Amino acid sequence: MRMVDLIHKKREGESLTKEEIEFIIQGYTRDEIPDYQMSAFTMAVFYKGMNRQEIADFTNAMVHSGETIDLSAIEGIKVDKHSTGGVGDKVSLIILPLVASVGVPVAKMSGRGLGHTGGTIDKLESIEGFRIELGREEFINHVNTYKMAIAGQSANLAPADKKLYALRDVTATVDSIPLIASSVMSKKIASGADAIVLDVKVGSGAFMKSLEEAKELAETMVEIGNSLNRKTIAIVTDMSQPLGHEIGNANEIKEAIDVLQGKGAEDLTTVALTIASYMTILGGVYTDFDRAYQELEKVIKSGKAVEKLKQLVTIQGGNPAVIDNPAKLPQAAHHIEVKAWENGYVESIDAESVGISAMLLGAGRQKKGDAIDYAAGITLSKKIGDEIKIGDTICILHTNVEDYDQAIQMIRNAYVFSQEKLGPKDLILGVIA
Amino acid sequence: MRMVDLIHKKREGESLTKEEIEFIIQGYTRDEIPDYQMSAFTMAVFYKGMNRQEIADFTNAMVHSGETIDLSAIEGIKVDKHSTGGVGDKVSLIILPLVASVGVPVAKMSGRGLGHTGGTIDKLESIEGFRIELGREEFINHVNTYKMAIAGQSANLAPADKKLYALRDVTATVDSIPLIASSVMSKKIASGADAIVLDVKVGSGAFMKSLEEAKELAETMVEIGNSLNRKTIAIVTDMSQPLGHEIGNANEIKEAIDVLQGKGAEDLTTVALTIASYMTILGGVYTDFDRAYQELEKVIKSGKAVEKLKQLVTIQGGNPAVIDNPAKLPQAAHHIEVKAWENGYVESIDAESVGISAMLLGAGRQKKGDAIDYAAGITLSKKIGDEIKIGDTICILHTNVEDYDQAIQMIRNAYVFSQEKLGPKDLILGVIA
Repeated sequence: MRMVDLIHKKREGESLTKEEIEFIIQGYTRDEIPDYQMSAFTMAVFYKGMNRQEIADFTNAMVHSGETIDLSAIEGIKVDKHSTGGVGDKVSLIILPLVASVGVPVAKMSGRGLGHTGGTIDKLESIEGFRIELGREEFINHVNTYKMAIAGQSANLAPADKKLYALRDVTATVDSIPLIASSVMSKKIASGADAIVLDVKVGSGAFMKSLEEAKELAETMVEIGNSLNRKTIAIVTDMSQPLGHEIGNANEIKEAIDVLQGKGAEDLTTVALTIASYMTILGGVYTDFDRAYQELEKVIKSGKAVEKLKQLVTIQGGNPAVIDNPAKLPQAAHHIEVKAWENGYVESIDAESVGISAMLLGAGRQKKGDAIDYAAGITLSKKIGDEIKIGDTICILHTNVEDYDQAIQMIRNAYVFSQEKLGPKDLILGVIA
Repeated sequence: MRMVDLIHKKREGESLTKEEIEFIIQGYTRDEIPDYQMSAFTMAVFYKGMNRQEIADFTNAMVHSGETIDLSAIEGIKVDKHSTGGVGDKVSLIILPLVASVGVPVAKMSGRGLGHTGGTIDKLESIEGFRIELGREEFINHVNTYKMAIAGQSANLAPADKKLYALRDVTATVDSIPLIASSVMSKKIASGADAIVLDVKVGSGAFMKSLEEAKELAETMVEIGNSLNRKTIAIVTDMSQPLGHEIGNANEIKEAIDVLQGKGAEDLTTVALTIASYMTILGGVYTDFDRAYQELEKVIKSGKAVEKLKQLVTIQGGNPAVIDNPAKLPQAAHHIEVKAWENGYVESIDAESVGISAMLLGAGRQKKGDAIDYAAGITLSKKIGDEIKIGDTICILHTNVEDYDQAIQMIRNAYVFSQEKLGPKDLILGVIA
């Protein structure tokens, strides 16, 4: 088999066999197939796509390009969750204790963030003492005992995907649905999940800008999951403005606590409860979505959910006092209020610009290894549909940097006002099972 | 400027500016742009093409990626000729002395062949003593004195093209018309030609399999020439069977002598005279095609053309006696006659298979640096439309190898017979000026 012939075959729109796809992924992982052939191949895939079977084979080959994590020592159906990424997305922080509260084991492995804010484990590290480096045995024991644990990805999971992603990033082949879908699913499957709930974000702050694309990505990932014997549900959720009010790290922890106490932002609460409900269904605890949703609402009202978060913090070495008193979380030196310059209503908030503003304030990494300022971030006081009068605070920037003019400019550009009040946005735009 | 953005731009089908194209070619030549970005780019070009201006800019950037040859010390309009390559194509051997006979200077630089047979300079080296390594001054003096010289390409011409061609070869991006056209034209222009006649072959033995593609390639190359101020004419010629009767090296020299003596194969004579006629027109000697054609026929009849070949051989150190007595050329140990196994007519001869058969007999190189057996080759006794009876010799294989069964099998597969006599094939399928 020669790679040049396989590139030619895909270039002509033909389908590749399982053996051909394994040849490509194995050869690429072992550096036997050079980057210049792989990038020509991915560009051909960009134009010609892959069919269901090819995508499943491609994903499976990437899963087996490195280590896979064996979670069989954990009792029950291990349900994982993945978001395609958005601004203000702190859903993982909420669903982890929430789903564990009703007995579904969540063995979460998470990477560090490279973007507007930190990732889930960066956010948790804003809690003093929180430890994300857990040994394998400790990790499994926690899940068996407490139904939950979260750890940084230390294993050599799907190295083919890692290598391929870096290549796609510099060859303009990132935005290909078969390649995105196989990338996401290979990591989730290598992490040992039995079942997966996917949150596909759509809108200005998301990678998928149109509902059509988002649904196609969602369907592709569900098909991969089904082909590889992982029960998979995808929901498509709105990211036309940031989710909730807080964007950052410590302030997102605070907002997650609010939701688990039943006093969180409505949009964030709805999205988190929807995802958690599907997770409990895949976990075999409930069979009906409405029932699951109501039961999880009860768990929140009863105070059990926030107690479960406190337990998570405690068992992973963090200071549980921050849960009762979030003021103990890192606080920034400066809090800059941005005021409305018109009367009317908020028409839109460009999530991408809000994210960049947060990064400029210190909340995110521009490159791998950069330090994150946990205290930095943004609080959106006004969201789409809210009435505003000149001089009202529309948002507050939290930062320790002295030069925040550009961040203010970005956030001012993000807000668009209008004279008419817009109706509420649909949050859940599709469910693919 | 970032290469990833330019790949993205081309991927989306947008046009690149002159500056962007120069950035790509210069960066690639200097190894600042890696192969993996260039191959993704060429795959995007494969699908999205380039417009006229982009192709001209791309060609010009490749011309200036290395040395260019200055032929201004040669008097007159220097006309070069290029063929896209076929089986039995010895036209360059014929036109070089023929065109020089009427005063058009031909300063020919030629590469070694990597294919079924050697290239033009390999073929000439089958003449004892023939020297293709000429110094710059010697080369120019010869052209000024004798109107002709041929030398191996020694200069660092269009290194970007050389590097890019090797990359395209292993990334399934060879057969892209903008990339083929710019590759051919960059080398011709860097070689210093003022005017160019292109012979675009079409058919089973050519790179272009359909007339439509061949015409598109021809038009693209003529447009490049015109954009870069080189008068360019392309003719599209039939390669549905090998050209002439001889395929090899020494035997192709013999056939070229036959044509220059006015006793050559009709198809080969027609193609050679057509190309030579357009060269004399571009060279400013004649203005009318029919007149040029007739004058060149007269040059052949008068014996001047073959004398000119003898002069070429003499001035480049070869033994001129071979021209009068081609039996002095290298001769093979074995001559295997292949006989017809049916009565009827020759319907088709797959040129590609004939070429491979010749290579198996020793006439070509499988890889760079391989030795060529000048004596090896094939004589096609019967061509399309010829009547055959069982037992008639259809072709003769000449070889020094002992194991020629596979070559016989290839040549038997190349011939297709029928019960009906086919009319003559059109040889000249288009002229683009």
